[in-house]
Amino acid sequence: MSREEKLPDSSSITRTPFANSKKVYVKGKIHDIKVAMREISVADAAIQGPGNSGSVVTVYDTSGPYSDPQVEIDVRKGLPRLREKWILERGDVEQLADLSSDFGKERLFNSDLDHLRFQEVKLPLRAKPGRNVSQLYYARQGIITPEMEYVAIRENQRIDELPGELSQHPGQSFGANTPRSHITAEFVRDEIACGRAVLPNNINHPESEPMIIGRNFLVKINANIGNSSLSSSIEEEVEKMVWATRWGADTVMDLSTGKNIHETREWILRNSPVPIGTVPIYQALEKVDGKAEELTWEMFRDTLVEQCEQGVSYFTIHAGLRLQHIPMTANRTTGIVSRGGSILAKWCLAHQKENFLYTHFEDICDLLKQYDVGFSLGDGLRPGCLQDANDPAQFGELETLGELTKLAWKHDVQTFIEGPGHVPMHMIKENMDKQLQVCGDAPFYTLGPLVTDIAPGYDHITSAIGAALIGWYGTAMLCYVTPKEHLGLPDREDVREGVVTFKLAAHAADLAKGHPGAQYRDNALSRARFEFRWQDQFNLSLDPEKAVQFHDKTLPHANAKEAHFCSMCGPKFCSMKISHEVRAYAKAQKTGEEKCDNVCRAGMKIDGC
Amino acid sequence: MSREEKLPDSSSITRTPFANSKKVYVKGKIHDIKVAMREISVADAAIQGPGNSGSVVTVYDTSGPYSDPQVEIDVRKGLPRLREKWILERGDVEQLADLSSDFGKERLFNSDLDHLRFQEVKLPLRAKPGRNVSQLYYARQGIITPEMEYVAIRENQRIDELPGELSQHPGQSFGANTPRSHITAEFVRDEIACGRAVLPNNINHPESEPMIIGRNFLVKINANIGNSSLSSSIEEEVEKMVWATRWGADTVMDLSTGKNIHETREWILRNSPVPIGTVPIYQALEKVDGKAEELTWEMFRDTLVEQCEQGVSYFTIHAGLRLQHIPMTANRTTGIVSRGGSILAKWCLAHQKENFLYTHFEDICDLLKQYDVGFSLGDGLRPGCLQDANDPAQFGELETLGELTKLAWKHDVQTFIEGPGHVPMHMIKENMDKQLQVCGDAPFYTLGPLVTDIAPGYDHITSAIGAALIGWYGTAMLCYVTPKEHLGLPDREDVREGVVTFKLAAHAADLAKGHPGAQYRDNALSRARFEFRWQDQFNLSLDPEKAVQFHDKTLPHANAKEAHFCSMCGPKFCSMKISHEVRAYAKAQKTGEEKCDNVCRAGMKIDGC
Repeated sequence: MSREEKLPDSSSITRTPFANSKKVYVKGKIHDIKVAMREISVADAAIQGPGNSGSVVTVYDTSGPYSDPQVEIDVRKGLPRLREKWILERGDVEQLADLSSDFGKERLFNSDLDHLRFQEVKLPLRAKPGRNVSQLYYARQGIITPEMEYVAIRENQRIDELPGELSQHPGQSFGANTPRSHITAEFVRDEIACGRAVLPNNINHPESEPMIIGRNFLVKINANIGNSSLSSSIEEEVEKMVWATRWGADTVMDLSTGKNIHETREWILRNSPVPIGTVPIYQALEKVDGKAEELTWEMFRDTLVEQCEQGVSYFTIHAGLRLQHIPMTANRTTGIVSRGGSILAKWCLAHQKENFLYTHFEDICDLLKQYDVGFSLGDGLRPGCLQDANDPAQFGELETLGELTKLAWKHDVQTFIEGPGHVPMHMIKENMDKQLQVCGDAPFYTLGPLVTDIAPGYDHITSAIGAALIGWYGTAMLCYVTPKEHLGLPDREDVREGVVTFKLAAHAADLAKGHPGAQYRDNALSRARFEFRWQDQFNLSLDPEKAVQFHDKTLPHANAKEAHFCSMCGPKFCSMKISHEVRAYAKAQKTGEEKCDNVCRAGMKIDGC
Repeated sequence: MSREEKLPDSSSITRTPFANSKKVYVKGKIHDIKVAMREISVADAAIQGPGNSGSVVTVYDTSGPYSDPQVEIDVRKGLPRLREKWILERGDVEQLADLSSDFGKERLFNSDLDHLRFQEVKLPLRAKPGRNVSQLYYARQGIITPEMEYVAIRENQRIDELPGELSQHPGQSFGANTPRSHITAEFVRDEIACGRAVLPNNINHPESEPMIIGRNFLVKINANIGNSSLSSSIEEEVEKMVWATRWGADTVMDLSTGKNIHETREWILRNSPVPIGTVPIYQALEKVDGKAEELTWEMFRDTLVEQCEQGVSYFTIHAGLRLQHIPMTANRTTGIVSRGGSILAKWCLAHQKENFLYTHFEDICDLLKQYDVGFSLGDGLRPGCLQDANDPAQFGELETLGELTKLAWKHDVQTFIEGPGHVPMHMIKENMDKQLQVCGDAPFYTLGPLVTDIAPGYDHITSAIGAALIGWYGTAMLCYVTPKEHLGLPDREDVREGVVTFKLAAHAADLAKGHPGAQYRDNALSRARFEFRWQDQFNLSLDPEKAVQFHDKTLPHANAKEAHFCSMCGPKFCSMKISHEVRAYAKAQKTGEEKCDNVCRAGMKIDGC
C-alpha cells in the first residue's frame, strides 16, 4: 500500500464562480425543496428576469454547492446531505448496523488503509425487508417525490416564469413528446413510471442533486474519470469530478481500475453533487487479479453490495452479451472493444457457460431495488470501428438488452441502455430507432458515436458529431469522449475540452428537437454579440474563461471589451458595425421625406415606417 | 510604409514529411501528367499496395511540393509552374505586355514597395480576344483537359488499382450520382460541363495543382488566412498557407484587409500549391479608405482585373444581395453579419440604387472567363445566429443567386454558391435542398453551419457538426472555422485545429454518402489499432504528430509503441488484448474435440470450425 497516495484537501478544489454569475435557489410548490440554478446578469434591454432579479439569464447548473460562495465545504467531511431528510421521511429504509459486503468490511477494518480512508463515513441505508425504494416504484404508485419535483423545476430553468411566447424555431423531434411550454412534476412522474426516464438516485448518495435522463428532457452528458494502473491519485480524481461538474457534467462515471478503488470511490461519492455510475466488473476483476475466468457470481454480487452501500447510482452491467453472440465477433475488424464485454466473453468461453450476469439478472434486480440503483445495460459488443457498425453481434446483444429491460421493469428497477460506438453518420438513426423499438422507449445512453476512425487526437470532435445527431434522434444521455480517446488518459484540460464539447452537442440536440426554451440562451448571446456587449457574450457562453482568453490574445486591452467592433476584423471591417450603420441610415432617411420613399418602397420596416 | 514588414524565407516554411510517408506521382493515361499523392507504409498483412509498392495506403495530398524532399523550394522564386505548359499548349492565351489594372501598375512602380515585393513576378496571361479559357468552356466543347484528367486520378487515390471489392458500407447520398467504383476523366468533364462541379484554375496561377469541387467528388475544405489592420505579416501569411495545406486545406482564401494586401497576395500565390480565393470587395474598400458609399464599379472592376492577373482562382462576389432584400434584415437578431454583405448594403442604401455587382454581373462574367476565374457567389445575408436561420432575407438572396448562376453559365464561367452560417441541425437540410433546386445543382460551399450560438471558443466544433451534416446532404466544400471564430484572429495552432477538424467532418460526409473507397483508410487504421501497430495507427491518422504526442503523454517510453495493450487501460484491462485472447482461446478449443463442441454449437466460425 503506497504511503505516497495524495488525499484531497479543499484547497485543491476549483470553486471560483463564473463572472457575473450567481447561485440562485428556486423553491418547490409541492415539497419543501430549493433547486439550485445559475443566474447570469446581462445588460440586455430585451429581457427582464423573473421576479425582481433584473436582466438575467438562468441556466442549468451541475456544479453543486462548489460554485456557491455561501456554502462552506470541507472535502474531508463531504457535501451537505441534501436528500437525506426526503429519504428518511418516506419511512421505508433502515440504517444497517454494519456493512453488508465482505470486501467493504475488509477494507474498513484494514488499518493499513487508515491514512487514505475518507473518515466521516456513515453506515449505509437499505430498504426495509420487502420494500422497494426506487423512484420507478414510487412513480408507479402515483407518488410525486421531492426528487421528481426537483428535476421538473430544474429542467425548466425558470422559462415558465418568463412573460410571452419565447422566440424559438419549432423542432423536429422524431416522436419525442416533450410538453410544449414547460415540464411539470406530474410529467416527470409519468415519464419515470413508464420507463421513458430515469432519475439516478441511490439512497446512500444523499449529497447528489436530483437530475433526470430521458428523451423528453434536456439531453444530458456523462464524464468518465478514474485512475488506472498507470496513473492518478485520489486527490486528482476528486478534483477531476468537481472540475467536470463545473463545466457541465450531469453524471460522472468512476471507471477506476487501479489501486484503492474502493477508497477513491468513497471520496468521490461524498463530494459529488451529481450521480455516480460505475462498471462493477472492473473492480471484480481486480479482486481476482485480472483473471477473468476466476470471476464468480458470489464475488461479483459482493462487489455490487459494496458499491450499492457506498452510494453508486447506476451500474453498467453487461448482461446482454450472451454466449451465442461471441462467435458473431470472430470476423469483426476490431473484435470486442468494450472492456466489460471482453472480460465476460472470456469468462463465458472459459467456462463454456452462459454469462452469469444474464443468468443472475433477477438476483441483481432484487438487490438494486433495495438501494435505488439503476441499470445501465452495457453494450459489450458495440462496434469499435466503422466496419463493425450495426452488425449482427451488436444488434443481437441489443435484442437481449430489450428482454432484460422488461425484466428490470418487472422489478421496478430504473434502467437505461448503452449504445455505440463507431458508426458512420448515415447508420446512426437505425441505432436509435432499433433501440426505442426493442427496449420499449427506455432511455438510450451512447458513447459517441464516432463518425470516422481516422482522427485520433480529435475524437472528441468525431464523436460530438455523432452525439449531436443521435441526441437529436432521441438519445437521452451522451457519454463524453476526450481528445485523448484511443491514445491516453485524459488530464484536467482534456476533461474540460470533452465536457464542453459534449455540452454543446447536447445543446445542439435540444435545439433540433425543439426543447422548450432551449434557444433562450442562444438568443441572448447573439443579441449581446450584435450589440457589442463583449462581457455578456463571454458570460453567456459555455466556457466563459476560454472565450475571454481567446479574445484577449488578439485584443488584450480592457477597453477592447467596450469596443464597437470585433476582434476578428478590426474597426473598419466589422460587418456588425456596418449593419448598425445600415439601420441607423435607414432610420435617418425617415426624417427626410423624399429619401424615405425609396427605403419604404423597398419595404423597410423600421419603427413602423 | 512600414520597413519592419517581415518577408518569408524558405527556412520559415514547414517541409518535414509525415513519418513513413512518401510522395508518389501517378502518371496520366490521356495526358503527360503526374499526379501527386502521399503513400503511407504500413505493416498490414491484409493489404497489398498497387504495383510493387508493398503494403501501403495512398491518400489525397494537398501539401504540394513542400512535402517532397526531392523538390528544391525557394519561396523567393515561387513553386514550379506545373500547369504552364498545359495552358500555353492550348494556344488560346497571350502574354500581356503590361499589367492591365491601374492599381497593379501603381503598386509595381512604387519604389517604396521594392523591399517587400515578390521579385520574380511574371507578366500575366489573358485569353486572346474573343476566347474563353474556362474549364467549363472546354468541358462543354467535349475536351478533356490535363487538369480534368489530373483531378480524376487524384480523386481516386489509387483505389482503382486495388484488387477485389473494398469493404465499405453502402452510403445514403440523397441523389448524388458518384460512380460506384471510381472516377474517370470523362466523368469529371461531364460534371464540369453541366455545372455540377468547379475546377478552380486561373491561368495566372500555374503553380496550383488541379482539384475539383462538386457534390459527386470528395468533400473539400477551405482555410481562410489573411492579415487585418490588427496584426500579421507577409511571412506569417505565407507560412499559414503552407501550414494549412500541410494539414489538408484544399483551397485557401486570402481575406487580408490590412496593409500591403496586393503584395501579400502575390507572395501567397507564387508559393501556393492550392487554388486561392479572395473577396475583392475587401481590397476595394481599402482603396476608398473604408467608405463604402465611395465604392464605384470602375474601381471595383480594376480590383478584379488586378486579382485576375495575379492568379486568384475564385472571387466571392456578393451580387445576390439586392436593394429589396435589405429591409428584410431590419428585424433580425443579428442583422447582416457578412462583411461583404454589409458593405454592399451600405452602398445600396447610400445611393438608393441596386447593388452594382448585380447590375454589372455580366460585365464581371466577361472579365472572369478571360482568366478562368470562378464565381463564389456570396451569401451576404447569411444568418449570424440561430434565430435568423432560413429567413426571407437569406432565402430571398439565394433565389437571386440562382438567377445569377444561370447567367454565369451562359458565359461559361465556373460558379459555386456560398451558404450559411448559423443554423440549428434540423433546419440544415432545407438549405441544401433549396440550394440544389434554385441553383440548378451548382456546388454549394458553406461556412459551418454552426448548430448553436453558445459556444464561442469551441466554434470549430459547433460548425464541424453542421458541416458534416450539410456535407452528407450534398455540400461540395466546407469553409473551416477555427476555435477563435467570433473572438480573435487564428494563429498557427488554430489553423491546424480548424483544418483537421474540417477534414474529419468532410471525411465523415464522404463516408455517409458512400463515396467509393472512402472507408479504406478507416479500415486500415482500425486494423492497426486492433493489432497494436501503434506507429501505423499514428501514421494513418489525419494528424499523426498530435496522435504521437498524446500517446506519449501517458506512455512516453519507446517500447510502449510495441506494447500489446493500450495507453488508456494498461496491460490488464485492455479489451482488445482480451479480445485477441478470446479468439486464441476459441482456436485452441478446436484442438481438444469435446471442448470444441460447445464453441461450435454456439456457431463460432474461426478458421472454418
